[in-house]
Amino acid sequence: MQYVAIYDTTLRDGTQREGISLSVADKIRITKLLDELGVAYIEGGWPGSNPKDAAYFDQVQELDLKHAKIAAFGSTRRKLINPEDDANLQALVDANTPVVTVVGKTSMLHVTDVLQTTPDENLNMIRDSLAYLKSLGKEVIYDAEHFFDGAKLDMEYGFDTLAAAAEGGADTIVLCDTNGGSMPWEIADFVMKARELFPEMKFGIHTHNDGEVAVANSLSAVKAGVVHIQGTINGYGERCGNANLCSIIPDLQLKMDVDCLPEGGNLDTITRLSRVVAEIANLAPDDHLPYVGKSAFAHKGGIHVAAMRRNVDSYQHIDPALVGNEMRVLVSDLSGRGNLLSKAEELGLDVSKDEAVQVLNDIKELENEGFVFEGAEASVAVRLRRARSNYEPLFKLVDFTVIVEDRLRRGQLSEAMVKLDIDGDIVHTAAEGNGPVNALDLALRKAILPKYPALRDIQLVDYKVRILDSESATGAMTRVLIDSYNGSERWSTVGAGTDIIRASWLALVDSVEYGLTIALEGEESPAIAGD
Amino acid sequence: MQYVAIYDTTLRDGTQREGISLSVADKIRITKLLDELGVAYIEGGWPGSNPKDAAYFDQVQELDLKHAKIAAFGSTRRKLINPEDDANLQALVDANTPVVTVVGKTSMLHVTDVLQTTPDENLNMIRDSLAYLKSLGKEVIYDAEHFFDGAKLDMEYGFDTLAAAAEGGADTIVLCDTNGGSMPWEIADFVMKARELFPEMKFGIHTHNDGEVAVANSLSAVKAGVVHIQGTINGYGERCGNANLCSIIPDLQLKMDVDCLPEGGNLDTITRLSRVVAEIANLAPDDHLPYVGKSAFAHKGGIHVAAMRRNVDSYQHIDPALVGNEMRVLVSDLSGRGNLLSKAEELGLDVSKDEAVQVLNDIKELENEGFVFEGAEASVAVRLRRARSNYEPLFKLVDFTVIVEDRLRRGQLSEAMVKLDIDGDIVHTAAEGNGPVNALDLALRKAILPKYPALRDIQLVDYKVRILDSESATGAMTRVLIDSYNGSERWSTVGAGTDIIRASWLALVDSVEYGLTIALEGEESPAIAGD
Repeated sequence: MQYVAIYDTTLRDGTQREGISLSVADKIRITKLLDELGVAYIEGGWPGSNPKDAAYFDQVQELDLKHAKIAAFGSTRRKLINPEDDANLQALVDANTPVVTVVGKTSMLHVTDVLQTTPDENLNMIRDSLAYLKSLGKEVIYDAEHFFDGAKLDMEYGFDTLAAAAEGGADTIVLCDTNGGSMPWEIADFVMKARELFPEMKFGIHTHNDGEVAVANSLSAVKAGVVHIQGTINGYGERCGNANLCSIIPDLQLKMDVDCLPEGGNLDTITRLSRVVAEIANLAPDDHLPYVGKSAFAHKGGIHVAAMRRNVDSYQHIDPALVGNEMRVLVSDLSGRGNLLSKAEELGLDVSKDEAVQVLNDIKELENEGFVFEGAEASVAVRLRRARSNYEPLFKLVDFTVIVEDRLRRGQLSEAMVKLDIDGDIVHTAAEGNGPVNALDLALRKAILPKYPALRDIQLVDYKVRILDSESATGAMTRVLIDSYNGSERWSTVGAGTDIIRASWLALVDSVEYGLTIALEGEESPAIAGD
Repeated sequence: MQYVAIYDTTLRDGTQREGISLSVADKIRITKLLDELGVAYIEGGWPGSNPKDAAYFDQVQELDLKHAKIAAFGSTRRKLINPEDDANLQALVDANTPVVTVVGKTSMLHVTDVLQTTPDENLNMIRDSLAYLKSLGKEVIYDAEHFFDGAKLDMEYGFDTLAAAAEGGADTIVLCDTNGGSMPWEIADFVMKARELFPEMKFGIHTHNDGEVAVANSLSAVKAGVVHIQGTINGYGERCGNANLCSIIPDLQLKMDVDCLPEGGNLDTITRLSRVVAEIANLAPDDHLPYVGKSAFAHKGGIHVAAMRRNVDSYQHIDPALVGNEMRVLVSDLSGRGNLLSKAEELGLDVSKDEAVQVLNDIKELENEGFVFEGAEASVAVRLRRARSNYEPLFKLVDFTVIVEDRLRRGQLSEAMVKLDIDGDIVHTAAEGNGPVNALDLALRKAILPKYPALRDIQLVDYKVRILDSESATGAMTRVLIDSYNGSERWSTVGAGTDIIRASWLALVDSVEYGLTIALEGEESPAIAGD
């Protein structure tokens, strides 16, 4: 079976998409998910251009990756200096990765107009930079920028640059369609020509979607003999995006019988990967993405669904379970109570069928309003607990008031008052914050901390807001997701509503209630064990 | 030059996308735009399945179309009846269009499982239905549903159904990849085989995007000899969508030298068409669409832009003006003064170099705080205007106060008070909203509307919130993006800060100021012209 290595550049080229910005923690989280899927390479960043990336390359050393090799990205040395004196190459070396990827110029236009150097010096820059990195024992991948446009402009020089990379010792040469305008048959022709000229070399492909054929261009290159594909999760990238690995990987595995994940790779994690990366990037997941989108296997009612029941393949091109997605019948969602009962078991809760049905109805109604419980399992857990007959709330809200002021003479102020009923005691207090939700958070903590000191260990570590139905502008529904951490466990909760403050309050309350419950159960456990 | 006819099915197959619903007036508006672009066929609906479509076919007769022929869509007759007794075919006839498109079954699986009839009767259904419509003088297009999957299952029967369509008198036979899972090379092979068997027949192609290769599949069919392509604007359609005509048309015209628009067609209207169809469908335009997206020709950073100034083709695959789009220089902390001066030129503003530097420094400082001006060009524009020496603000904020309450006995309340200085008059007013930002928005509008009635035409159409550095939880920086629309232009503004209310206020103010400024300049223009 043919094998093609997948090279993910979500963390570098993907972040060129307008509006994406990833923290080091985000990048580490994505790295783990990519490794679980089973990609061969993960390009972590450009240490010479972005100082923040250095922290990533430090932290990623700590991970115990099963499949992926980490690559650092950089460009060939500057003109007329030695590679060892080049700060950018030095940063590449300092990244301390087994793989380095070096981009160089193919196109005469860019050599003269952008680098402003001679054709020969560009060849030296490519050859020297690669030879230097090879001498340090690195696996070296060479990205031939603008390869297709450059070769169309000056075929001979284009291939000379590949020769320089081969002489420098490149392990793989990646042909890049940087401007994204090439057609699949052009890609195939050039790949075949390159393989003819360099029969021993391994070639790869890097495409962009400016003609809406980036995926086809990558597949077409595979048919012409490349063994390495660069792309990004969800096709994120500059302009119209990079080649979308969430389509390429299933196309290769399921349609072309080309292996691109190693043994132990998990194609069925790709849907979750796609959605989590969207969440982390704070972009709404695109429901219409092939294979991984929420609508990719959605079927409307009536005859269509009846036909699907008679023969499941009558209206779908693959079994969605292969990519971890699911068929969705748009009329009604019939699965449910079973899921919830297994969730209760998971939590060690004794929930009756009636109670489960009640929580399920509650959840369905809230999802109609804009909540999403899929990623917010602590909000499910607190609802399961609240459904039990012996449930006693830790605290009840009486009132809250939040004031935000911006005054010419007095400046800005965000202040919250809360009144809570804690076991029959009324606690009324207030706090200031650097914004209204922060003020509310601090006031809540202040009110309940004396009674529940375990709260001290619970930190809010992530707060995300998504505007649903954003066309309703400032009147739109708002969904808030909060992540909390107690030093060993991390949990997520959800709140929603047109009022962002109240939506945040709902997520806050679930978060604190879940955290305190597991802390209190932890304290009680020894006593129960002693009974 | 090769010619391929474009067959648009946005109004029928496109509306299968979840959430799209078009009124008759919407459909008429889209029909005019498609005709202006120069497509050959516009499929208006399925009169036999959707009674609302009858009204469209009535009204469309009134239009004086320059290029497009209107087609009505329906299926072959029911089993074991005469075509003239079939209600669905009768509805097709009643639509009174020059062209009818009839869909029939190719796949044995669907004949036995879905139609529940015999293979022979299915062939009769195809042959009879087409012959009947031909006898009425119609141009008849035959859509072979599930052609590729059906032929893979039973090659002989698949081609028998095409023979039945040919015998029935089909003018064009369209091979449909209904489940969307075929690969470009499979499409090409089947098209060539069909052309071999029916050398006199005109063939067309209809693809879906379930493998993310719908555009490539269509182009690959053209290379194999089809002369008719079915698709939709923006690729709207069920599941992952139909083949996107906004990419196919430019790919054919600009990359493949295949003519698909008639003389007098207007390729440069396609960007506007794409965005207006999105507006009409009430979907946010996808900024990353090839050719027509707002980001399709967007460029970042200094060196990049400098290279573009030296040679405009160094980082773009076509001249965006060919499709009515434009290059966009993204102004950000990475940009130089040149970016800002080009932006001022774009806006027709006379800004000095010193003023540009001042705005640039301002922008850099704000981007450090969490603003992003890349997508928020109206916020750049108002800053350029504010930097001019003769700038007079339309209004100044004195104070605002926002109160959010959730009280056991009084329920929930969001209320805002604003005090503004409008040309020396102090206006102090208040409003309630369904959330704090909505309340502030309504109070601001209430305060300035009497002085600036043009505000009535300015709608907020999109409101997005992003939490930056979300690990700081409820104390994190918040970035707000607002899109506004005045009936002809759409613009974006940005605000940021730890306080979401204040961040929203900043974006609101920019949005209103930009909208009012262009409205007031519009009013003044005749006077200036008369000077």
